[in-house]
Amino acid sequence: MQLIRPTLLIDKQKCLRNIESMAKKAKENSLVFRPHFKTHQSVEVGEYFLDFGVEAITVSSVEMAEQFARAGWQDMTIAFPLNIHELPSINHLAENCSINILVENTEVFPFIKKEIKNKIGYFIKIDAGYGRTGLDFKNTDLIDSILSEGENSSMLSFKGFLIHSGNTYHANTVDEILQIHAHNLGAISHLKSRYKKQYPDMIASIGDTPSCSLANDFLGVDEIRPGNFVYYDVMQYFLGSCQLENIAVCVACPVVAIHKGRNEVVVHGGAVHLSKESIEVNGQKIFGLPVKLLSIGWKFLDEGNFVKSLSQEHGIIKLSPEEIEKINIGDFIGIIPVHSCLTANLLRDHQVFV
Amino acid sequence: MQLIRPTLLIDKQKCLRNIESMAKKAKENSLVFRPHFKTHQSVEVGEYFLDFGVEAITVSSVEMAEQFARAGWQDMTIAFPLNIHELPSINHLAENCSINILVENTEVFPFIKKEIKNKIGYFIKIDAGYGRTGLDFKNTDLIDSILSEGENSSMLSFKGFLIHSGNTYHANTVDEILQIHAHNLGAISHLKSRYKKQYPDMIASIGDTPSCSLANDFLGVDEIRPGNFVYYDVMQYFLGSCQLENIAVCVACPVVAIHKGRNEVVVHGGAVHLSKESIEVNGQKIFGLPVKLLSIGWKFLDEGNFVKSLSQEHGIIKLSPEEIEKINIGDFIGIIPVHSCLTANLLRDHQVFV
Repeated sequence: MQLIRPTLLIDKQKCLRNIESMAKKAKENSLVFRPHFKTHQSVEVGEYFLDFGVEAITVSSVEMAEQFARAGWQDMTIAFPLNIHELPSINHLAENCSINILVENTEVFPFIKKEIKNKIGYFIKIDAGYGRTGLDFKNTDLIDSILSEGENSSMLSFKGFLIHSGNTYHANTVDEILQIHAHNLGAISHLKSRYKKQYPDMIASIGDTPSCSLANDFLGVDEIRPGNFVYYDVMQYFLGSCQLENIAVCVACPVVAIHKGRNEVVVHGGAVHLSKESIEVNGQKIFGLPVKLLSIGWKFLDEGNFVKSLSQEHGIIKLSPEEIEKINIGDFIGIIPVHSCLTANLLRDHQVFV
Repeated sequence: MQLIRPTLLIDKQKCLRNIESMAKKAKENSLVFRPHFKTHQSVEVGEYFLDFGVEAITVSSVEMAEQFARAGWQDMTIAFPLNIHELPSINHLAENCSINILVENTEVFPFIKKEIKNKIGYFIKIDAGYGRTGLDFKNTDLIDSILSEGENSSMLSFKGFLIHSGNTYHANTVDEILQIHAHNLGAISHLKSRYKKQYPDMIASIGDTPSCSLANDFLGVDEIRPGNFVYYDVMQYFLGSCQLENIAVCVACPVVAIHKGRNEVVVHGGAVHLSKESIEVNGQKIFGLPVKLLSIGWKFLDEGNFVKSLSQEHGIIKLSPEEIEKINIGDFIGIIPVHSCLTANLLRDHQVFV
């Protein structure tokens, strides 16, 4: 493989192991495994899931649903609050696919009734307690109103409740992640005890990678929708969701300048490749972790090596005096991204499988 | 114009005024105006510059040079330190275009001599004093070595010195920006007094939007390469480079949820549309400024309205109690990006001209 420009390297074997491990956990806990494809957005990586019995997926936009419908996927939850302007596209998708949407208010129903001529499912989005989006699980008045509107919409069927704990990404310890997860199990228990009689087939769906990676108790949960775990990244490593060796992607970046006086190298690899996502580690803001690229895979460096800053096209990597001695102009250095979802989105047209 | 999904709105009239103003400043100061096209990356916006006599442009990657070569541009400086793996592409470009590259070390010359069969120009990159990339202007030993290598490369001609003051983006006051600019004028004066006799046609090229917008003294400068000014953005506004009414882009985002209890609305418009770039204003981290979209253009809201957080697809906008009362599900809210270069890069396939 000849590298020329910043390129996302995807380690297929690591992806397969990550998928296998999550599929096994789902099976052991009798959970439907409906992986989120927003992380990789790749038809090829999507196919990796077929060997593990995955038939239903999650996406985060209607455009992504259209992409994966073209690739042959026929059962998709669009895990984003309904944008009423996309109802014609959703209706079109539902001609040939089983589509679920998210609802969290009653205002959307007149629009749904007007536009949707094919059967679709809907989940009610429940706030995981961090105030991004969704309803408080105790707000049963509004939930009842939504269900009542749903009953009056002949093309809609209620699927269940969907929670996404994006707040686990701000946790400081594994315990905190497990506490958030426990809070969600409580919400599910509450919702099930209230609505299970009326909707015996209702699904409780949870989704974030930290919870799905770390939790072992899924009482009341019917479905998991993690996405990031297929690649993992620096953020997940520091959250405790994975080990460094589980991370399945890095960005190969050519070295264009070496500044030994300040132990820095400059690579072509900036915000348009990695995204501006950063994380603070021991008081130092970092934008990625540099790795040595091997003929197969890559090798992590010691702690003193990190991506110090990114501008549009430039990355500045701090290297230890020992490491910088080994670097020549034109070498490729790997950078493990802080947030692989954003990096993979930026490098959709510049990726290779290793 | 029917909006459906997150879409970059480009106000053509504001772009034209921004270009006119910068072109006028260049003319008054006898500067060559070689605008940077990395901000817009748009063939259509590129054409706006033709009316102002622009024939030569700046780009930040070889891929971008290829894009604009296809659009008919024939004189381009690739303002990024040379990646030796792209020399075959650069050589190919130089068959039909006048191409300048950046050099800041001697290690690249054997590769250049081997690959380049067409005449190209080179600039020596000078560090503006903030340690991203380039040479210290006092490091005349290394500059002399590079020039000597350049003399021995039959296809290379020395164009001059190029400085990019990315450090103006971290300035806290207009005075600080002007001090950085003054430092660069000092560096140019030093370099000219040393090399002008040997290279009477040498060009001193500077480029950042804050300096080019704010400075009035360009003593010794021959060329300016600002890029961001065509759109400007929230960051430039807080730096003092522009007024709010000069900002020529915003992202139209559909409202998908309204949470009056916490004065927040959720829009489809996240990190994959706006980028994760943020700025701290009065101790509050913001990811963009919401505006009311009008039939033509947009209107800014009061200070208490800002984008509070972004995840991959979601944006959370804090609105004042008065503003949130006016919002309905399905409305489009505009978001002025913190950093328009990154936003325009993400929305290259989702833009309309207004």
